[in-house]
Amino acid sequence: MSEIKVVTNILQTNDAITAKNKDLLNDKGIYVVNLMSSPGSGKTSLLELIIAKLKNDINIAVIEGDIYTTKDAQRIEAQGVPVVQINTGGACHLDGEMIKGALSSLNLDKIDLLVIENVGNLVCPAEFEIGEDIKICVLSTTEGNDKPLKYPLMFEKSGAVILNKLDLIDYTNFDKEEFYRDIKSLNANVDTFETSCVKDQGIDEICLWLVSKIENKKIKAK
Amino acid sequence: MSEIKVVTNILQTNDAITAKNKDLLNDKGIYVVNLMSSPGSGKTSLLELIIAKLKNDINIAVIEGDIYTTKDAQRIEAQGVPVVQINTGGACHLDGEMIKGALSSLNLDKIDLLVIENVGNLVCPAEFEIGEDIKICVLSTTEGNDKPLKYPLMFEKSGAVILNKLDLIDYTNFDKEEFYRDIKSLNANVDTFETSCVKDQGIDEICLWLVSKIENKKIKAK
Repeated sequence: MSEIKVVTNILQTNDAITAKNKDLLNDKGIYVVNLMSSPGSGKTSLLELIIAKLKNDINIAVIEGDIYTTKDAQRIEAQGVPVVQINTGGACHLDGEMIKGALSSLNLDKIDLLVIENVGNLVCPAEFEIGEDIKICVLSTTEGNDKPLKYPLMFEKSGAVILNKLDLIDYTNFDKEEFYRDIKSLNANVDTFETSCVKDQGIDEICLWLVSKIENKKIKAK
Repeated sequence: MSEIKVVTNILQTNDAITAKNKDLLNDKGIYVVNLMSSPGSGKTSLLELIIAKLKNDINIAVIEGDIYTTKDAQRIEAQGVPVVQINTGGACHLDGEMIKGALSSLNLDKIDLLVIENVGNLVCPAEFEIGEDIKICVLSTTEGNDKPLKYPLMFEKSGAVILNKLDLIDYTNFDKEEFYRDIKSLNANVDTFETSCVKDQGIDEICLWLVSKIENKKIKAK
């Protein structure tokens, strides 16, 4: 029982810090995405394309969460937008305290969209609120269509699910019908997108959808 | 600091239970594999092929770790070997207590090779010893060659790394040279294999290697 109590305390502490981060982000009218997936599903590749398409019209900043290395932050920096790297040093997810530190390094007056790329992990990141307006979960076709029921929390909590690597689906046994049936059984109102970064497929739809979310948030903040 | 102390306690408790499990498994001369990877790298598919090739000569049993569902255990059961499903109900890794429960459901006198398929997660499972003789980490080509440096603990602790989905490598930008350089920098003595489950490629090599490990363990147990 003591272990359970500790976990509850950790979550409560996180929620308190996150609430403060969220107040700050709401005051500034910044729309915040918590981008999550397994390692290698294509989060950073999707983000590179989204930034390239939106950066002339929207002020974007990125917080990159990785256990080690600055590989992803370097890729985002090359897109010419502000980026802060968090190295968790072993921890399997981002939390409110880490985000608080990263926010202090960003000029929040010049951000419309903040994307937080979480640690590659289909389990733990879903348990920790980090001040996001929406959780977006990416799954790639090569990972198999059985993942929503095997990792339900991630899919239950996400406001949108992106099925990526559509260019590879013909080389897999991925069953789209079953995939969408499982997702909808967990989360009836989730928005879904299909993308291929290699073929630049489906990214425009995500950008349009994101822009409407960002504009809604700005209107509410005024 | 209190959080760190708690984590230390959890690991110590796990080590104590695992030590007892390990004594039992050593007494029976059972060679134990802790099979780990991201979700969807192909652990279960590899295991299906390995079982099909070895089950007439070697007594194999499997412990399947999943957060929810018995999908993987059903696939293994279809191969006609004993299998126990552990549903962690949210936890991101297997631990000694869960394995203790699973072992009580198996006839340990009739097992030469016990494969424990861990929860799909490239982070947390590497932190918990569960009584294995060897950790094997699977990475698929579609996940990208940057993963060893981003998730180093898993690759440092593994005795073997399997690069799976070799049939798809030509559709990716996976850099094998960099991949092996990074792995060797983390873990100079690791054994490596390349496989494709679709093409039944590289599985025979793994089987031969496993048989020699199993035989060594039997000799030591006598």
